[in-house]
Amino acid sequence: MAAAQSRRLPRAVREQQMLDAAVRVFSRQGFHATSVDEIAEAAGISKPMVYAYLGSKEELFTACLHREGARLMQALADAAQPVDAGEALGTDERLWRALRAFLRFVAAHRDGWGVLYRQARGQEPFAAVLADLRGQMVEVVAGMFAAGAAPGADIGMAAQVLVGAAEAVADWLADHPDEDPDDAAERLMSVAWLGTQATLRGDRWTS
Amino acid sequence: MAAAQSRRLPRAVREQQMLDAAVRVFSRQGFHATSVDEIAEAAGISKPMVYAYLGSKEELFTACLHREGARLMQALADAAQPVDAGEALGTDERLWRALRAFLRFVAAHRDGWGVLYRQARGQEPFAAVLADLRGQMVEVVAGMFAAGAAPGADIGMAAQVLVGAAEAVADWLADHPDEDPDDAAERLMSVAWLGTQATLRGDRWTS
Repeated sequence: MAAAQSRRLPRAVREQQMLDAAVRVFSRQGFHATSVDEIAEAAGISKPMVYAYLGSKEELFTACLHREGARLMQALADAAQPVDAGEALGTDERLWRALRAFLRFVAAHRDGWGVLYRQARGQEPFAAVLADLRGQMVEVVAGMFAAGAAPGADIGMAAQVLVGAAEAVADWLADHPDEDPDDAAERLMSVAWLGTQATLRGDRWTS
Repeated sequence: MAAAQSRRLPRAVREQQMLDAAVRVFSRQGFHATSVDEIAEAAGISKPMVYAYLGSKEELFTACLHREGARLMQALADAAQPVDAGEALGTDERLWRALRAFLRFVAAHRDGWGVLYRQARGQEPFAAVLADLRGQMVEVVAGMFAAGAAPGADIGMAAQVLVGAAEAVADWLADHPDEDPDDAAERLMSVAWLGTQATLRGDRWTS
């Protein structure tokens, strides 16, 4: 039991080191131009060891996406808590915190997550991993909106618009390293919140 | 002169046929799995002829993106005209028409443009073509918003949010063949317009 434990711990640590190296190499060179040899070298581990731990290049890239995606979702979920220090937060405050957390994450991972994200978006089977992640984000946002929304309010569309807009701003932020993510989040919130608020009241625009 | 003209016309027609075939094959199989042989076969033209007309597989894919992108921009520009039948249109009416045109285009090209778009998004040098197209869309939308906006209004962010939200809805529409693009455009407009309107007035949300 103790022996199994001690073997398990280094494995987990080593896997994280491999993933760190893989994220660096993939985001610098792109999926197609990267070889498992280069990742092994960057991680200071033999190539057969990389295969044994994390599988093929494709599985390695998928593992990178899953880990980085899970970190992003964790940051979002932490930021969007309904209660902070015993105080219930309004939907706008929660949305603002979630947007800020999202854009801070993207800004802090410009070389890693941002690049992986763009590479994965257009390529199966990775695009499916991102579509799933995107679905989770829409769900988190829709959950926030559901509290206090009018019956029949178009929560699904409001959440979709929010996530799409946030992704567009994240993309822009990834290309503009001098921009401040908190400022971008506040500008995004300015544009997005009033429309969202009207939608949650049940308002509809008609042609 | 007449001879040059008659040779030029068939070339243009043949190029369009090649591009039609290329869009079909690329969107069914993906860029990487497609060979120029297959495109030549689908177009009923010899492979050397395809190379002579449109160049390498990469150039062929870029030509597909340019043509489909130009069609989309044309549809958008037509829809967003400031005057219709002698009547000046309000910004909301123009935005609504542009969103509807965009989503109709995507819905009508589910198998073509939508798939190319997703493939290109994550891969250089194609991603640069899309970033350029996206920049054009943001410019068209910002131009619409500039008419009558308050001094200092955050037109750039409002346009970016709009385009990002529209792309997200287009993505969703591409996966939901039973959804009606006009209905999706109206739901998107409902969420997006009120926030945009406040932004153009110069309102800002502050934390």
